[in-house]
Formats: sequence, C-alpha cells, structure tokens
Amino acid sequence: MRLVVNRSRMLSVSAMVFISLLLGGSSAFAAGDATTAELKVGLDGVWILIAAVLVLLMQGGFALLEAGSTRMKNAGHVAGKTVLTLGICAIAFWMFGFGLGFGETNGFFGTTGYFFGGDESTSASLFSSLSGSDVPITIKFLYQMAFAAISLAIACGGFAERAKLSIYIIFGFLFTIIIYPVAAHWVWGGGWLAELGMQDFAGSAVVHMQGATAALIATILLKPRLGKYSPDGKPAMIPGHNQVYSVLGVILLWIGWFGFNPGSTLGAVNDGFFGYVAMTTQLAAAAGAVAALLISWMVFGKADIPSMLNGVLAALVAITGACAFVQPWAALVIGAVAGVVTFFTAQWVEKMGIDDPIYAFSVHGVAGIWGALSTGLFAAPHLVETVGVGKAGLFYGGGINQLFVQLIGILGVFAFVAVLSVVVLGFLKWTIGLRVTEEEELVGLDMSEHGSYGYPEQMKALQAQEAAVLAKADETLRID
Amino acid sequence: MRLVVNRSRMLSVSAMVFISLLLGGSSAFAAGDATTAELKVGLDGVWILIAAVLVLLMQGGFALLEAGSTRMKNAGHVAGKTVLTLGICAIAFWMFGFGLGFGETNGFFGTTGYFFGGDESTSASLFSSLSGSDVPITIKFLYQMAFAAISLAIACGGFAERAKLSIYIIFGFLFTIIIYPVAAHWVWGGGWLAELGMQDFAGSAVVHMQGATAALIATILLKPRLGKYSPDGKPAMIPGHNQVYSVLGVILLWIGWFGFNPGSTLGAVNDGFFGYVAMTTQLAAAAGAVAALLISWMVFGKADIPSMLNGVLAALVAITGACAFVQPWAALVIGAVAGVVTFFTAQWVEKMGIDDPIYAFSVHGVAGIWGALSTGLFAAPHLVETVGVGKAGLFYGGGINQLFVQLIGILGVFAFVAVLSVVVLGFLKWTIGLRVTEEEELVGLDMSEHGSYGYPEQMKALQAQEAAVLAKADETLRID
Amino acid sequence: MRLVVNRSRMLSVSAMVFISLLLGGSSAFAAGDATTAELKVGLDGVWILIAAVLVLLMQGGFALLEAGSTRMKNAGHVAGKTVLTLGICAIAFWMFGFGLGFGETNGFFGTTGYFFGGDESTSASLFSSLSGSDVPITIKFLYQMAFAAISLAIACGGFAERAKLSIYIIFGFLFTIIIYPVAAHWVWGGGWLAELGMQDFAGSAVVHMQGATAALIATILLKPRLGKYSPDGKPAMIPGHNQVYSVLGVILLWIGWFGFNPGSTLGAVNDGFFGYVAMTTQLAAAAGAVAALLISWMVFGKADIPSMLNGVLAALVAITGACAFVQPWAALVIGAVAGVVTFFTAQWVEKMGIDDPIYAFSVHGVAGIWGALSTGLFAAPHLVETVGVGKAGLFYGGGINQLFVQLIGILGVFAFVAVLSVVVLGFLKWTIGLRVTEEEELVGLDMSEHGSYGYPEQMKALQAQEAAVLAKADETLRID
Repeated sequence: MRLVVNRSRMLSVSAMVFISLLLGGSSAFAAGDATTAELKVGLDGVWILIAAVLVLLMQGGFALLEAGSTRMKNAGHVAGKTVLTLGICAIAFWMFGFGLGFGETNGFFGTTGYFFGGDESTSASLFSSLSGSDVPITIKFLYQMAFAAISLAIACGGFAERAKLSIYIIFGFLFTIIIYPVAAHWVWGGGWLAELGMQDFAGSAVVHMQGATAALIATILLKPRLGKYSPDGKPAMIPGHNQVYSVLGVILLWIGWFGFNPGSTLGAVNDGFFGYVAMTTQLAAAAGAVAALLISWMVFGKADIPSMLNGVLAALVAITGACAFVQPWAALVIGAVAGVVTFFTAQWVEKMGIDDPIYAFSVHGVAGIWGALSTGLFAAPHLVETVGVGKAGLFYGGGINQLFVQLIGILGVFAFVAVLSVVVLGFLKWTIGLRVTEEEELVGLDMSEHGSYGYPEQMKALQAQEAAVLAKADETLRID
Repeated sequence: MRLVVNRSRMLSVSAMVFISLLLGGSSAFAAGDATTAELKVGLDGVWILIAAVLVLLMQGGFALLEAGSTRMKNAGHVAGKTVLTLGICAIAFWMFGFGLGFGETNGFFGTTGYFFGGDESTSASLFSSLSGSDVPITIKFLYQMAFAAISLAIACGGFAERAKLSIYIIFGFLFTIIIYPVAAHWVWGGGWLAELGMQDFAGSAVVHMQGATAALIATILLKPRLGKYSPDGKPAMIPGHNQVYSVLGVILLWIGWFGFNPGSTLGAVNDGFFGYVAMTTQLAAAAGAVAALLISWMVFGKADIPSMLNGVLAALVAITGACAFVQPWAALVIGAVAGVVTFFTAQWVEKMGIDDPIYAFSVHGVAGIWGALSTGLFAAPHLVETVGVGKAGLFYGGGINQLFVQLIGILGVFAFVAVLSVVVLGFLKWTIGLRVTEEEELVGLDMSEHGSYGYPEQMKALQAQEAAVLAKADETLRID
Repeated sequence: MRLVVNRSRMLSVSAMVFISLLLGGSSAFAAGDATTAELKVGLDGVWILIAAVLVLLMQGGFALLEAGSTRMKNAGHVAGKTVLTLGICAIAFWMFGFGLGFGETNGFFGTTGYFFGGDESTSASLFSSLSGSDVPITIKFLYQMAFAAISLAIACGGFAERAKLSIYIIFGFLFTIIIYPVAAHWVWGGGWLAELGMQDFAGSAVVHMQGATAALIATILLKPRLGKYSPDGKPAMIPGHNQVYSVLGVILLWIGWFGFNPGSTLGAVNDGFFGYVAMTTQLAAAAGAVAALLISWMVFGKADIPSMLNGVLAALVAITGACAFVQPWAALVIGAVAGVVTFFTAQWVEKMGIDDPIYAFSVHGVAGIWGALSTGLFAAPHLVETVGVGKAGLFYGGGINQLFVQLIGILGVFAFVAVLSVVVLGFLKWTIGLRVTEEEELVGLDMSEHGSYGYPEQMKALQAQEAAVLAKADETLRID
C-alpha cells in the first residue's frame, strides 16, 4: 500500500496554530486539548487500527466461506484451522515477518526489527519504509500482520479437505517468515519492485496472488480429493454444504475490504482520498457480483449463487491493487471483468485436473493477476500523481510502460512464491507426507485430525440415514 | 479500565512544532502535522466511512435473519439474493440514485450528479443539499448508498420464498432509481417535506417505511405462499428453519444501527451529539426486546424468540426517526411501544390474508410510521433546536403542529411508494409474471432459481427421510 | 438523516477561525473547522463509540459460541437469551448500574447518576471518576454498559441448558444492579481497590472473573445436566452441536476485544498507547490458540478444536487485565499459560462433579484470576508509569507487593460476587426454583421455554430418525 504524499502548504495556518498554542494557555496537554500534530497521530492511529480490525474480521469471512464450500464431515476442521493459522501467523510475524517485510532493506528483505518490541522511539530507524505515515508503529505492525494472515488464509484454501493438520502448522510458520514478507518487501518495503514503480496499492499481487500461488502449488502436490474425478478424468461436482455460511462469509469479507483498501492510504488526512479508494472498491464489488451472476445464468441456465459469490471476491481482489489509481467507471469494468474471467477459469482449472476446492487460485490468483495488470491499462494520471507511484496506464496515453512493469512484478512474485512453495511443500511431502489417508478422508477430517465431528448430532443422523438406506437395500434383496 | 493520565509536560514540543512549521521546508504537512480544518475533514470522514461500513454490515444481518425465517429449501436463495440486490443497488445508485436523491433540486428530485465521478471540487455545486457537512463527497456517496441498499433489502423481504429471481433484479434497479431517491430527496435532499420541517433523523419513514410499503405491495400482489392459508382462510404457521441465524442476524443489525443513527449527524464535532443519538438508539432497542418478549409471553403463554427479535428491530426502526429529538425516557417508551404494537400487527396482517413471510411491513412499516409520528409527540425543545428541524412535540407543549407535519410526510411517502410499486410490480406481473410456478415453489427456489440446494447434504437426508416415511406408510398399507 | 444545522453563518471561514483562535472562543462551529480541544473530544468520542460497538459485537460472539457448544434442542433458546439479557442489562444499567458503578463514591458504590439523563454539563460532578477522559458522557455510558453486558453474558453461561427463562430475567436485572457495578466501582470508580492500586486495565477481574464467579455459583446450585454424570460420577461428553458457530463466535469475540482492551485507554491521544495495548492483546490471543491446541494434541492424542477455542478466549481474558502493563514477550507467555491452564482446569472442574456447559469458570474465571495475578509478576516499570496505577511486578524487581494487592483484589471481588450470587440464586431456588423439569430438559428448552424449536425442520427429521430406529428395533424383536 502507498500513502498519499502530495499536499499543499499554508503558512498562514501555521501562524494561526502557533498563536493559538501560545494563547491557548497551559491546557495544551490537559484532558481537554492537544496539538494538531498529536491529533493527527491519534486520528491516523484510530483509523488504521479500525482498518486492521476490519481485515482481521475477514478471517471470520474465510472460516465461513470455506466451511460453507466444503462438506459437513470436514466442517469443524475447515472452520477451526482458520483460527489456528491466524495464531501461528501472528506469532511468526512478530518474530520475523514484520522485520523481514519492513525492516531496513538489503534490496531483497528487511534486516531489522525481529521480535518486534513495540517501541515507537526506534521505529524510524528500524522501519524506515513505513515512516511516511505517522500511524503509531504498533498499529502499523497489527495492520501488516493482518495482511499477512489474509495471504496465509488464501494459501491454506488450497489444502482443503485432505491435508494433515501438521502441514497447516509447519507451512503457516514458513510462509509467514520466508515467503510472504519477502515478496511484500519487494513491493512495499522499499525493495526492487518498489524501485521499478510497480503499482499494487493494497495487494492484488502482494497478498492475493501470493497466497493463491502457494494454494495452487499445494493443491497440485496434494492431488485431487477422492471422488473428484472419474477414472476417465471427468470432474464431479462436490457441492459445499451450506450456502448461507458462504453468503455471510463473503459479506464479512466485503465489509473487511473497507479496512484492506482505504486503510492502505495509512492515514486519514489526505483530502478524502481514503474515501475515494473506498468508493472504487465498492463499485468493483457490485459489478463483480452482478456480472458473475449473469454469466453463470447464461452459461449454466440458472443463476448460480456460489459463482456470484466468487465474482464478488474476484472483483474485490482485482480492485485491491487498482483502487487508488482508477476512475469509478474503470472500477466497474475491472470488477465485472474479474467476475466473468474467474467464472471461466474456475471451470478450466477443474477441467485441467486441478482440484481447487475453494477456487483459491481462480478467485485470488487469476483475479489478482488481472488486478495487477489493470493499473497498467486504467491508471489515470491525476490519481497516479496523488499516490506517487508509477505512471499512467495504456488507456490514458501512458503507453505500455506501466503494463510492462506490472507484468515483471507479477512474474517475479509468482516465480518466487511458486519456487519456494514447491521446495517447502515438496520437502514436506517427501518427508512426512502432506495428505491424510484415504480412510481418514472418507470418514472426514473432523474425526481424523480432531477426534470429533463439527456437527455431532447431525452426522449421527446422516450416517444412520445412510445405514438405513443400505439396510433397506439389503432387505429388499433378501426378500426377493 | 484506566486512562492514560501520566504524560510528560513538554513546552519544548510546542516550540518544536512551531519551529518545524515555520522552517517546515515541505514538512509543514509532512507525516507529522495538519491544520485543524484538515483534521476535522479527516475525522468526520473516518467516522462516516465507518458508519457506512456498519450500515453495509446490516446486509449480513438481513441475509441471516431472512434465511433463518424461511425454509431450508429456499435458504441459499434467500441469503444469496441479498448480495445480488446489494450489487444492483450500488450500481443503480451510482448511475442515478445519488444524483436524484441529493443533486440540485427541482422541488421533487435532484437533477445533477448522475454517474457520480467522485470529484470533491464540484461537490458543493452538484450536491449542495449535503454541503452542511464537510465529510468527503465520496464518503457521503457511500453512506447514502448504504441507506438505499437497506431500504431495498427491506422491500425485497416482501418477495420471500415465491418471487422469481428476475423480479429482484428488475425491481432492485427501478426502486433504487425512481422510488427510493425521490422520497429521500423530499425529506433530506431539500425537497418539499424538508421545507415543511418533517423530522426524520435517520429514516424511519425515508428508509424503513419506504421499503416496507414496497414490501407490502409486493406481498399482496404475489399472494400468499402455498399452504399458508387453509381453504377457509385460517393461517398456518410456516416456521423459519434456523433461529440461531435469526438471532445473529438481529445482533448484526443492532450493531449496524450504530452507523445508521449516530452517523446521521454526518460529523463528529458536535459536542458529543452523535453519542447522545447512539444512547437513545440503544435504550430503545433494549426496551423493544424486553417488551416484545413479555407481551408474547402473556399472549402466547411462552416467550417467543422470533417475536422478541421482531421487537428489537421494530424499536430500532421507530427510534431511527426520533433518536436525535427525544429524551432517554422517551426512547425507552418509543421502543417498548414499537415492540408491543409490532407483535399485534404481525398477527393482524396475517389474519387479513396477507402473507408477509419476514414481517417486513409490521417491523419496518408499522414501526416506521410509529417512529415518524413519535417525534410529533416526544420531540424535546432543546434537542429540536440542536438539530434545527421542525418544532417540539405534543408532550412538550408544541401542540399538534409537528404531529400534523409528520402525518403529511408519512402519507406523502406512503402514497408515492405504494403507487409506484403498484405500477412497477403490476406491470411486471402482467408481462412476465412475478411468481415461480407451484411446482418450483414446492421443490424450493434454491433448485428452481439457482439449480442447487443451499444445503445439499441435509436436503438429501431430509428428502430420503420423507421418502422413507412415505414408503413405510405404503408398506403398511400393502401388508395389511 | 439530518446533519446538525444550527450553526452561525460566517463570511470568511479563515477569518473566523483566526479570530476564534486568538480569542480562544468556542464559536468555531463552521462546517470547515474546529478548535483542537473540540477535535480531541470528537476523536476520543468516535474512538470509544466504535470501541463500545465492538464490545457489543461480542454479544453475537457469545450467542454463537454458546449455541454451538450446546445441543440442537436448546439452540434457539441459548442464542435468543443472549439478546434478552443484553436488553435487560441495558435498561438496568441505565436505571441504576451506571450510577452505582461510576457515580460519586461513598467508598463502596456510587450515589449519583441514576436514571442517566445523558447531560454533559453535569457529568463532571455526577461521574467524577470518569472525568480524566474527555469522551462525551453518553459514550462513556454506552462503553460501560457494554462491559456490564459482557459480564452478565458470562454469568449466564453457567445457567446453560437447564435454567428457567424467568431466572435469566430476574438474575440479569439484579446482577446489573447490585453485583456488577459495585465491584466495578471498587476498581474503576474510585473505590477501595483503586485506592490500593489494583491493576486491572480492562477487567480480567472486574468483568470476567465477576461473571465467571456468578456462573460457578449458578452451575453448582443448578446441579449437572441430565445424563452428564453416570451413577458412579463419571462424566460423559455432551458435545456441542456446531463447531462452525463456535469458531465464528470466537472470531467475533477476538475482534470485539479490540474495543475491550485498547478502548480502555478511553482516548486516542496518548502517544499511540492504545495501539500498544492492541498489540499485546493480539499476541496473547495467538499464543493461547497455539498453546491450547498443542496441549490438547499431546493429552488427547488429537488436536481438539473446542479446546483451542477455549485457549483463545482464556488468553484474551487473561491479557485483559495485563494488556497495558506488560511487554510483548510477556503477553505471549501470559496467553500461552492461560491456554494451557484452562485446558486442565476445564477437565478438573468436570471431574469434581461441576457441570459447566460452556466452561464459563475455566475460561473466564481461572484465566481471569491468572490475568489479574500476572501483572503482579510481569508489570514493567515504564508501562506502570504510563498507566499510573500500582507498581512494577515481581519479575521487574517490584517484589511481591503488587502481587499481594492483586490477590486481595481477586479475593475481595470473588468473595463479594460469590456471596451475593449465593444469596440471590439461593433465594430464587428456594422460592420459584431455578431449573426446568426433567421432562422439559429432555424435550429441550426451545420447546419448554419458547414453544418452538430453533430448528423446526431438522428436529422433526432427527426425531423421525430416532423413532424409525426404535421402530426398527421393535420390528426386529417382533419378527424374531
């Protein structure tokens, strides 16, 4: 994310402030008053803390969306592992992630600020990449940590319904230390992609595509779920068990995005720019919902709710990188295109024999790539100037320069994450194995990994139901 | 909790601020400082953006409440259409709704600001009705859009469990363009009801009664659900399938109302007035919950949870118009009365042969009318002066003048919305039809409109259950 | 919505601002500017109102966690009574609780401010204990009320699945008046524990241990649920019916804690201290999640999700008192210890024959005690100085003085709440009885207290299932 750095100056106001401070009496630091500088730090801090809380709320959105998109026998596991990975990420990020991401750069990663102490006085020297904003360093830490946790949650989407719990723990730790913060550093921490002028305001590439790339590698290495493909390779539908969860999950994610995107201005005093970013975010999401619903209606013959929900998310993922750089009409286009493209890639990925149970790569990867490319097309000059990163896009006479920079960034981040994910997950697969046994997968991961069903009463009924059906079939055979 | 009370006194800091401001270089507005005017814009903007986010969260509340109040076979549909209508509303509002609602007035609707560009510099001339607040125009847009989406969600409550998906889309678009913003304009955009001094702080009439009126017309034109009434007109209970959803939905709505009501002060620098509005809101909701539970206990013999939840909402709907105008004791009375009245109207509406599956008209319409009338009774002079709209209420010596103005407003808005809804929905009924077929309604709208059940695993079990019961009955007959 | 429009007309805003700054007058109420004092009140007010809303969101967390942790036949009841107790608490707190807690002290409770009127001008004399913060008094009221409602919700956890609805109502009222605010007064309202220098920043003892003590007394007086213990006293597992609810519930609670802890600074202008408190809160929660999951894995052989969730909550409960006093590494330790200790006490409490269905006492009581003690160990001198309460902890050379003060506070609050709870609940048990009948408990409280199941369609299926199984057993017997 980038802050807004261009603001006008007014000397007369400084004089007025000075006079008021002098005349304002000794109440300058009483319960009732403060300096404008202190107020600004307080205001920026409150805004970004709330933005961080909104991003953390997205963990609830993921838990619901993922549980709703998978089967009842895995529901407790799928929901619960979200809390686990959030906890692991927070600790790993405190230990190393924050420093690696935002500490003093050696060009590739940060070298200061490990085991973050929360001390404001050293923050300018330990985390200079963040010093353009006066938000207190502890809140910058929480905000960045919340972003890392989102990227990890996306990555874990690729493991769904067949990975061992230990894999979530080990990968969660490693992703938060050696993968995520390094790529984040390149774009936001002063690394080489920042130097190149790559535009990724809130993380289409840094957060979403990163997580999705790891999810893709994971889902390929894990191989498809049992029963997903018939022997001749034809994909079977494995519907999620609860669309109400999925809907609420997506609504919570949509809400949380108001922390994710506008919060990336890292301040509140920027001529209402954070409001502008919120508006483009909202328009894109709306366009994604409608476009995805309509395209599914045309192709499937029925308006498919899971497709619509994926459209909302894809649009939000795409606008994540572009929200500060594009005009409202462009936000609508970016969102609609994301919704439509994701609809098709979800099916192509499946046809290619890749079982991505929660569409992590289509929604976060493909749309993340589209979002990162889109600024190369739609970045408007006055907005580029406000943000102060990169150049105008192709449709505004900027030529293909910015598009090219975006492409380099996408390829660079993708390659880095893909290679490291293959190394880490490949090693884990070779040593301890990634996947539960077939029997465990059939019984359900709630039982195999956690020892109890997420829905004890309902699973009992469902299983009794199946047993009764089988018994009736037997009985019919015997009578005949 | 303890506040931070020990801070070092630093006169030198004031000096440093002064020196840096004077010497400033380009650092006068660097990360560390801003003018009081800029801080105010930033603070107001942050507050109202968060308020808008809270109002958007209410969409999640509606999705849960409505899904919980309807049957399993429609659950995915009922929850999912909430996201769809939110998307449609956002786009339609961006195109025309915002301008029609808040653009330069011709007395009846706004004539500027269509296809809203997000530009602050022209906002004073394009949206002068909103210029009393310094919140950035993009955030004003988002806030107003969130309100429109609430009104539409309420309207769609009347369609539940039997309307075709296409109706939601077409009506959603039209409501957001030709119905909602016009009535909003009359009260909030400088139109004729504003001139008359109608008091509706956050929208008991403008948002809730509008939506409920459309819901009432829709529910009448759609006719009751299959099985709702016996041949002799006696209503049958069709219970919602999940009270936990309904409870969580109402809690999210309750939370969101803290954006809805206090946010309607459109600023944070008003001697804590936005806090006062939050308090009256909270007291009313509490009174509605308790009053509705107790009245249901007395009448039904058991404390009915859905009735209590309706009581909370009715109270919040009622206080929505009155929150800024009444004293705390009056807020408790308004909330309690709303909770009790709604309890009875819900049953009367049903007895009259009107099947309102989610009680949209009782909760949002009747309570909206009560809320709009209540300021004519309870508006306290010092609060009226603070807000600057209308006059004191009957119980404070204001006579029946304000009551009369409120009544005109209620009738005017009701008539307008009713007529237009009849025209729009009547036309749709005549041309493409509003309702799914009987067979589709029996199978469930998840299947008919979307091609898959919201609960695939559970519906399979439920249906196998029913089939088994039928088979057993057959078997018994055959053996005999 | 209406904006506050009664403001004086001003020819030139800058001239007005300048003049008002020189004269220090209070007339700068133009749309565009404000004094720094006004901005501070507005900023602090917005921050704490949002913090209050976050704490209210925790009611949704409790509703979900409790419903998920109990059985389907009680789900509507368990979720719904959360809304009821919230309403009762709000009213009782408005009537007496706020004044008793924070009114002018007689050493033991407050004597002013009953039937709170919302008037700012008298707040300094009526609620002097809160006057160190300039947050508007209405928002201070809402914030304190939200805390009381949390304590009550915890207390009600001990009643789960067998208490009559009337008990929730009567106890809710009494707890909010004669129990909670008195103990809160001792620590936060200027009472004797504040004098002693007890450190409880956001309420490990005042909120969590209070509620948990009442829950413990209730759960003992109510006696265990039917079927919980075999005749020889061996505890049976009664699993909750929905772990997805429990997960989402805990995530909402975790989110809400960002209002609970950092909001307890009661301001935003404190050198980012509220951000520091947010950080220690987050680190503790993460440590609690991971530690509890790992310990359950070691002891049970499987990583138990409910245990992990309890670990998150226990850690948050513990850090609640310590968040402002300890360094980040200590927050991790406090959270991890809480997660592990709670895991074991949950089992010991059960073995002792105490059926605490939602682990209220382990999670909120034991962890609350640990949290209150922990500052006596870990309170760091520079943080103690910032907060201005008590002394440094044992590990920082403060000796055992602070530890001793904490112990006195814990014992004092525990004894007070325990005694009063025994009196109130004992009296209710003796007069009207606390518990539903055996038959009602077997059928489920949804039916007995509310007349309808929370899951009508699913309960019908479940019961048909059980009937079919029984019928088949009969049939098999008859054929043979």
